[in-house]
Amino acid sequence: MKKFINSVDNMLAESLDGLAAAHADIITLGPERKFVRRRELNPKKVTLVSGGGSGHEPLHAGFVGYGMLDAACPGQVFTSPTPDQIAEAAQEVAGEAGVLLIVKNYAGDRMNFEMAAEVAECRTATVITDDDVAVENSTHTIGRRGVAGTLIVEKIVGAAAEKGVDLAGCVALAERINARTRSMGVALTSCTVPAVGTPTFTLGEDEMEVGVGIHGEPGRRRVTLERADAIAFELTSVIAEDLDAPDGTEALLLVNGFGGTPTIELYLMYNAARRMLEKRGVRITRSLVGSFVTSLEMAGCSLTLTLLDAETTALWDHPVRTAALKW
Amino acid sequence: MKKFINSVDNMLAESLDGLAAAHADIITLGPERKFVRRRELNPKKVTLVSGGGSGHEPLHAGFVGYGMLDAACPGQVFTSPTPDQIAEAAQEVAGEAGVLLIVKNYAGDRMNFEMAAEVAECRTATVITDDDVAVENSTHTIGRRGVAGTLIVEKIVGAAAEKGVDLAGCVALAERINARTRSMGVALTSCTVPAVGTPTFTLGEDEMEVGVGIHGEPGRRRVTLERADAIAFELTSVIAEDLDAPDGTEALLLVNGFGGTPTIELYLMYNAARRMLEKRGVRITRSLVGSFVTSLEMAGCSLTLTLLDAETTALWDHPVRTAALKW
Repeated sequence: MKKFINSVDNMLAESLDGLAAAHADIITLGPERKFVRRRELNPKKVTLVSGGGSGHEPLHAGFVGYGMLDAACPGQVFTSPTPDQIAEAAQEVAGEAGVLLIVKNYAGDRMNFEMAAEVAECRTATVITDDDVAVENSTHTIGRRGVAGTLIVEKIVGAAAEKGVDLAGCVALAERINARTRSMGVALTSCTVPAVGTPTFTLGEDEMEVGVGIHGEPGRRRVTLERADAIAFELTSVIAEDLDAPDGTEALLLVNGFGGTPTIELYLMYNAARRMLEKRGVRITRSLVGSFVTSLEMAGCSLTLTLLDAETTALWDHPVRTAALKW
Repeated sequence: MKKFINSVDNMLAESLDGLAAAHADIITLGPERKFVRRRELNPKKVTLVSGGGSGHEPLHAGFVGYGMLDAACPGQVFTSPTPDQIAEAAQEVAGEAGVLLIVKNYAGDRMNFEMAAEVAECRTATVITDDDVAVENSTHTIGRRGVAGTLIVEKIVGAAAEKGVDLAGCVALAERINARTRSMGVALTSCTVPAVGTPTFTLGEDEMEVGVGIHGEPGRRRVTLERADAIAFELTSVIAEDLDAPDGTEALLLVNGFGGTPTIELYLMYNAARRMLEKRGVRITRSLVGSFVTSLEMAGCSLTLTLLDAETTALWDHPVRTAALKW
């Protein structure tokens, strides 16, 4: 296991301390590092709380700040945050308008966010993201997995909350974005969970896992590594067919690296995917390319497509100021 | 070689097309992709042109835009751009105030930028960056190598140019920043140049290369992988001793990933380095953490420290709008 690490037990705490120190103008840590919260809270607006296992950085703590999340709860690596973490974060940022909990569709996350919502002494509503089209059910997941599309929900609903949309409106918007979002990924290498110390799965020197999950869950098939165009064609075909977008629809294309894939390759994949989607009649009007929802040091990437309209485009463009996204 | 790629010959062109399409509001490609230039030019200000071998993305093309570079010339992977690329880029963005060429200290880059300056039909001045303290001379380099500190020169001088500083003033500022900047890196794995197809160097399962260059050049020593704190201690010690900063000096700390190292590890290294530098009396007042000056998919990172004063802090804070840096 080749990582910059002092000890398995302290890895997450030290990384969170670094994040908080590097972005002290934007965020602060809760007690015992149970959550990362926005330094300046706005008690009048709906507040957004998300979280999940660590190892997907910058998701979610890197998206705490103006225009996006109010707090994020980091679990241990690939492990859900505990109900008390989530409940304390929600209470910390709750105003009169209520708290929206944004939860990726994994059994552990759903259970713990649900328990947190029951015990939290504040008004909450919950939205589940499930944008991964690769498989219908996965390890520890009933239904589709929630993956990189989650950041798009967080960005667009975060902007709406800043503009004063109420809790019911934020829920409806989040469900609408999630319903218009599809993702699918491919892994070229495995990742290694620090506490385990050996790779989560093994791929041959010339193999890739198509449809991989962000914790290394199996995808659709393990095949010989193909050319970038062939990979992009498969991912965009599955996504576009599942979305069944009308000709000429505007969309946001996110090419997301899994942690071990460099920028030069991500832009190459973006170029391939964009050409193919436009050939299908999808107009790519907004783009995001980078490593935003990672799987530790896994080499690979995912494509995410979100259908846009004038309202959601304006919300995407709305200013944001977080550690990982700023405009 | 596991990469998202269609062919070795087209990799760079396809990645540049992706970059230009994803950021069409900021940048545009020159003829035959010889350079990436800012979409909106300001003919009154000093313009900044940089470039170098590709494989270090987002450096330099990802830093073209308001507040930073006016054009960047991408060479083939780990290969200097040609003199005609550089001369055409300089002429394209030149206004009456002249063009500042920012060149990393490698023999090929220096020679080609020098030839470009001779043939370009515009006023130019040149600044060489050489922030890497690891080795005094390296493969193909006389003197120290120019590495991640280059982006700090580009950011601060880019802001000064927007504010109307003239060419001589930009040169003096760039030299001052470079003189106050030191970097040093460590590799946990090699990278593979696509045209070669095999790793540039080999490291044992438990080895690291301390002081590695951004093309995989040898560093100071190859040793058994150490704890993150021990690595951070060595890098910060060499950097701080070389800078000989007075007690209480303010500084910018950049923790830069080499392409294959995820964010969770970079923030852990930031946390370690910051603590150690502050113990030495350096006050970290500005921070940047991410993969900005990469070596293809190499796992590893570098630390860069730049001593700041009120003027350079304000220039660092000045708005920037590029593909890779925005605030």
